[in-house]
Amino acid sequence: MPKKIDHEARKQDIAKATWQVIMDGGIEAASVRNIAKKADLSLGALRHYFSTQEELLDYAMELVKSRCEARIMQVIQQNYPPKQLVTKVLLELLPIDRESMAEMQVWFAFTLHLKYKQGDAFRQTDGIREAVQRALHFLLDNGHLKKDKDLEKETEKLYALIDGLAIHRFLNPEHFSGEYTAEILTEYIDDLCRE
Amino acid sequence: MPKKIDHEARKQDIAKATWQVIMDGGIEAASVRNIAKKADLSLGALRHYFSTQEELLDYAMELVKSRCEARIMQVIQQNYPPKQLVTKVLLELLPIDRESMAEMQVWFAFTLHLKYKQGDAFRQTDGIREAVQRALHFLLDNGHLKKDKDLEKETEKLYALIDGLAIHRFLNPEHFSGEYTAEILTEYIDDLCRE
Repeated sequence: MPKKIDHEARKQDIAKATWQVIMDGGIEAASVRNIAKKADLSLGALRHYFSTQEELLDYAMELVKSRCEARIMQVIQQNYPPKQLVTKVLLELLPIDRESMAEMQVWFAFTLHLKYKQGDAFRQTDGIREAVQRALHFLLDNGHLKKDKDLEKETEKLYALIDGLAIHRFLNPEHFSGEYTAEILTEYIDDLCRE
Repeated sequence: MPKKIDHEARKQDIAKATWQVIMDGGIEAASVRNIAKKADLSLGALRHYFSTQEELLDYAMELVKSRCEARIMQVIQQNYPPKQLVTKVLLELLPIDRESMAEMQVWFAFTLHLKYKQGDAFRQTDGIREAVQRALHFLLDNGHLKKDKDLEKETEKLYALIDGLAIHRFLNPEHFSGEYTAEILTEYIDDLCRE
């Protein structure tokens, strides 16, 4: 493998080890030492790829975001009719399968970590609110949204519903199977649209 | 003050110091040592009230729950008409003011802490889902809920909306003022009800 690709692949392996550490013990377990151990690397070898814990956590989080974005791009390329397209895109924001469940846990732990670290200066940059807003605009532009809906407030509601469902599925996966969680979001979107 | 009351008041002071420590630095900051310092007590004095960190965290969390329950009981005693009553009760589950914002942060940090500690054995015991379910049943029994609503699924949606809004207000209080957050929940409940 060319060196650059090899370097990037290694960084991704380390990021995935980071996820595993966070999933097992929360963000407080995500020390460079623990991550190196999980990735089967010496501290020195890990520092070759990431010089600080912050840099590593940022990378691990960006990887969550870019994987989710890549899945959404795949959905968008399928040419679904508008309502189905919106539903499928928004389902990608929920932790439905094992992989997205892991991503969600990492996102959750990392977001809280940043909020505590940055306090009032914290800004949410995961792009979920923007994705929800664009989805609702798209339904409106295609004549699917029921009349008398205030787009701004519908965005807040749907955005809260998505993050709330994600958290409930994380906390109680036995009650909230992936299928059941998807069903609830799908029904919610149906309710927003005309018959 | 009689000794027993004094003892209980002291425990509440320590619980509030615990909240402050969690709000400032997350659950990972909530060591017995940090809490004793915040409460202006020696480690020995603190151990007189709580012999382990777990016992202290449990008490601090139960205090959040019982304060919220007490506020809800106060609302229930006011004899509001059904829809207004339900709205006011559910608003008590959101972090609207400074006090409930603090409680919510503690609840959030503690819930995650337990989830990581207990893994699959974790069960949510905050009673919020049950409160939401009872509220919707009450609307139905009083003829306010729109027809064709599936109570089970409406419970999931409203419960997710409430926890999602709570988290968004915590993460981004500048955008989600208490008033704005309350407005969104109120509108959502209005939408569930007949004209």
